[in-house]
Amino acid sequence: LHRIKASGLKLRFCTNETQATREKFVKKLQGMGFDISVAEVPAPAPAACRILKERSLRPHLLVHNDLVPEFAEIDKANPNCVVIGDAAENFTYANLNEAFRVLIGMEKPVLISLGRGRYYKETDGLKLDVGAYMKALEYACDVEAEVVGKPAKMFFESALAEMGVPPQQAIMIGDDIVNDVGGAQRCGMRALQVRTGKYRPCDENHPHVKPDAYVNNLAEAVDVILRQL
Amino acid sequence: LHRIKASGLKLRFCTNETQATREKFVKKLQGMGFDISVAEVPAPAPAACRILKERSLRPHLLVHNDLVPEFAEIDKANPNCVVIGDAAENFTYANLNEAFRVLIGMEKPVLISLGRGRYYKETDGLKLDVGAYMKALEYACDVEAEVVGKPAKMFFESALAEMGVPPQQAIMIGDDIVNDVGGAQRCGMRALQVRTGKYRPCDENHPHVKPDAYVNNLAEAVDVILRQL
Repeated sequence: LHRIKASGLKLRFCTNETQATREKFVKKLQGMGFDISVAEVPAPAPAACRILKERSLRPHLLVHNDLVPEFAEIDKANPNCVVIGDAAENFTYANLNEAFRVLIGMEKPVLISLGRGRYYKETDGLKLDVGAYMKALEYACDVEAEVVGKPAKMFFESALAEMGVPPQQAIMIGDDIVNDVGGAQRCGMRALQVRTGKYRPCDENHPHVKPDAYVNNLAEAVDVILRQL
Repeated sequence: LHRIKASGLKLRFCTNETQATREKFVKKLQGMGFDISVAEVPAPAPAACRILKERSLRPHLLVHNDLVPEFAEIDKANPNCVVIGDAAENFTYANLNEAFRVLIGMEKPVLISLGRGRYYKETDGLKLDVGAYMKALEYACDVEAEVVGKPAKMFFESALAEMGVPPQQAIMIGDDIVNDVGGAQRCGMRALQVRTGKYRPCDENHPHVKPDAYVNNLAEAVDVILRQL
């Protein structure tokens, strides 16, 4: 990261994290020694807030308690849409029924989902991710959710707009073949896949997505990028 | 019902009820004065038990507590499939994650769903039905559930086989345009829709399903049937 920042290249950290505010998330990374600030972190919750404001939507929130502060400035009275994130322990039978009732009660139900992940791993095992609960509500209400966060085109476009950089001049580095690489490429960026983190060897035979190049780790990605300047 | 039974016609009560054993369900109807016995009630749980036995499947159950006795004789050790019903209060975050982990841990995940309903109404409001949770697990594990109960063809066929009646000689009476009427017709039966219960006027413009006739209530359905003998 220091080498990229020293080069003068513009940089954003695009995350799909919805279990905590960016403040909390960034503090954790700073604690690990990363040079990173909240303003450099495009995330689903602030992206959703922009949409809510633009379209005068008042959300009923089904999200993680730690994410609620991201919606502090949003009017939530008399809701006319549902926003679902990875609510974890908040995915109770009662909360799911409540979100469903709000949604089905609308003349034209609007469901905004902070991601479409299937599942993820925690120390105590695999957990269903927001995408599974999104599918449940989609089916029950016969609607299609609007997904914010990676791999949504608008999510990448909004990060690019913030930097004032056209997609052809930007490059994505990520470990997720679909959400990072596929998403970035679909909006005209190039994308490197790192062979760390979520990467699995079978990604290299993915039926739809092919990265512009593979790198073994983030440092190698930086080498490749700086070499081309 | 008395008039049908007196006529000598064979009769079955096809239900998608999965919140109670047939014993409990039948006792309730008997208490209301209906001449009905457990052996006359094809239901999703016993249909699932037949499948489990035939295919040597050992289920992990995510069902309502009151339905568990229906699976008393089924081996549930070291599960190699998941059976999901309308588990109601048992649809907790922990139980959903557990069912998901059992399923994703299989080489070829087998998910059997006791229905595909979207939602239903109780005195305290609308509730998500088993179909929504089925969709969540389907998405997370990238599988398609095998649905037992109405409108599955096999469900009607098995009821007909029990009676020894070919579909052409059978008639379905139901209030649900898709699950009752559509399901029965797809297996070659005729079907009457009663204009009571779940019936809604817009059913008469359903894009795919058209009953062989409408009747205002069950008594009128019996009139129509007996008249044709």
